[in-house]
Amino acid sequence: MDSLTIALDAMSGDLGPRIVVPAAIQALNCYPNLSVFLVGDPTEIGLFLSKENKKLVSQYQQDRRLILTESTTVITNDMKPSYAIRHSQGSSMRIALELVKDNNVQACVSAGNTGALMGLSKLLLHSLTGIDRPALVATIPALNNQNTVVLDLGANAECDSDMLVQFAIMGQILAKTLLKIEHPRVALLNIGEEEIKGLDKIRAAASVLKSNDQINYIGYLEGNELLTGKTDVLVCDGFVGNVTLKTVEGLVKIFMSLFKSSFDHNSLLMKLLSKWLQRKVSKNFGYLDPGRYNGACLLGLKSIVIKSHGSANQKSFFAAIEQAILAIQTNIPEKIAQSLSSALPKSE
Amino acid sequence: MDSLTIALDAMSGDLGPRIVVPAAIQALNCYPNLSVFLVGDPTEIGLFLSKENKKLVSQYQQDRRLILTESTTVITNDMKPSYAIRHSQGSSMRIALELVKDNNVQACVSAGNTGALMGLSKLLLHSLTGIDRPALVATIPALNNQNTVVLDLGANAECDSDMLVQFAIMGQILAKTLLKIEHPRVALLNIGEEEIKGLDKIRAAASVLKSNDQINYIGYLEGNELLTGKTDVLVCDGFVGNVTLKTVEGLVKIFMSLFKSSFDHNSLLMKLLSKWLQRKVSKNFGYLDPGRYNGACLLGLKSIVIKSHGSANQKSFFAAIEQAILAIQTNIPEKIAQSLSSALPKSE
Repeated sequence: MDSLTIALDAMSGDLGPRIVVPAAIQALNCYPNLSVFLVGDPTEIGLFLSKENKKLVSQYQQDRRLILTESTTVITNDMKPSYAIRHSQGSSMRIALELVKDNNVQACVSAGNTGALMGLSKLLLHSLTGIDRPALVATIPALNNQNTVVLDLGANAECDSDMLVQFAIMGQILAKTLLKIEHPRVALLNIGEEEIKGLDKIRAAASVLKSNDQINYIGYLEGNELLTGKTDVLVCDGFVGNVTLKTVEGLVKIFMSLFKSSFDHNSLLMKLLSKWLQRKVSKNFGYLDPGRYNGACLLGLKSIVIKSHGSANQKSFFAAIEQAILAIQTNIPEKIAQSLSSALPKSE
Repeated sequence: MDSLTIALDAMSGDLGPRIVVPAAIQALNCYPNLSVFLVGDPTEIGLFLSKENKKLVSQYQQDRRLILTESTTVITNDMKPSYAIRHSQGSSMRIALELVKDNNVQACVSAGNTGALMGLSKLLLHSLTGIDRPALVATIPALNNQNTVVLDLGANAECDSDMLVQFAIMGQILAKTLLKIEHPRVALLNIGEEEIKGLDKIRAAASVLKSNDQINYIGYLEGNELLTGKTDVLVCDGFVGNVTLKTVEGLVKIFMSLFKSSFDHNSLLMKLLSKWLQRKVSKNFGYLDPGRYNGACLLGLKSIVIKSHGSANQKSFFAAIEQAILAIQTNIPEKIAQSLSSALPKSE
């Protein structure tokens, strides 16, 4: 079993070490071949440790599977990426990325400022040749046990048609690698199915993709087809992708809560029925639970960087760590790099 | 009881007269003070009439409550708006709008090409003073029996900051008029809550709205807060609005269908339980059923134009007709016109 090493930005996200540390311990418990660099303020990290976790941390530190790496500042969500990058020295995010850069770890997970993570990753780890800007990508569960690779989920609020084409190509390679689909269907998210619909950049990307015989381009899809499994790869700009994914997450949360509250009853029979239903609902709809698919990969970099939701809880930050492990095991950046040169449109 | 007169574009939408005519009859049955101009190809309209509906059509025609108005062409969804408008003479959409223009009817409902409907409406019916381009608006049900006015839902795929500000002002007036909220909260849809997040045009609109003391501007909201009732008015460009609304619709549909299928059982007890649950689900989640809130108003015109979903069935086209009736009864264009001059930012 190959060893796995990951750096975690322990100060990132709404709850910082309060959730990152327990998630790290959970991952160390689950993956015996995993080592974790926990980057953060040691005092703060200590503050939120339960007695049991304190013991585990000591144990893992002794085993050299948990390495606390001190940072002195934090990049917050309200910082402009350009400002954050200029002032990133000593920050938990930068140190975590430098651990990747210096080959101390194979991947990094952060729940911090998306724009800063994107900018710093580009600066320190570099994009693959042919990729202007990396994109946040996630594999979203769809109907009939299918999955859809969706990108960009928020790394690039504004995209031009070249970027959309690059996203399509990277998404396609990811669907081949991760989902084992030989000829993944690739679609562009748009506001109509007809060719004339939508924005100029989308129509321009469509015309490039149509003429690329290495891409199984199937046309435009609309928002209502997002989770129907009609495509294996869905491409959009980061603004639309982020709003759409968050809309799905919000709606699933509302469904789940409405469902629970509508069966709040006092009688024993109703309580039993409610329990049974909750299991049923979780079995049927749980696949839409955002926590289960937390962790978006910053695709197009030479190394692996995973962005967790800022509002992640322990369970979902753990899911993001698992995304990092999967990316290491499937060697995603190298797979992308290998396939890129043949799939990218030739510049004239 | 004041009389109501509406023109229906009978050839519009995926199913044209097959659903528009029964929906018109349903509306005539429900609203004794309603008269309908049904614009379309008489042969096609006749083709899809059931025996019973044929009788009703004749009866309503005799009573002069149903007037068949012949059109010779149809604007299809794959036409570019500019092309469609140039070739609109004799089309069902244009004739329906001309009936509004000539004061033969008070409102028009079409399920046709959104861009063409928008362009033709602007051309024939004109925008209100101070409004660059009308926006598609709908009132979306949110948690706790609240409602949110959302615009633009697809009339303008690209918007600048001035348009976003105008949408915010119109949305606010609509929330006052329709939802009876004295100081409606107004938010911009964005990919983060921090001021620095998102696109330039959104930040520019935010700064204008913040300094307008007639607007209760509360900041940015993210996609996951769409249906939580945190705002009374939510403003975005037409591309994002369209994708978001359709995502919600698609998800609700998936949720409903999964729920139904997961309780398909053969035993009588399970069948009874399933029935009971479906009623419960419909009571709790039915408010999210897209059909119930079909019909988006083209806000910012001097007259009332309602856009129905292209894929509307009879029930949802009927809902769109009811939106037109509500807009007539509340006299929306005049209300907007009255309030606009004081709310719009003064040009220097």
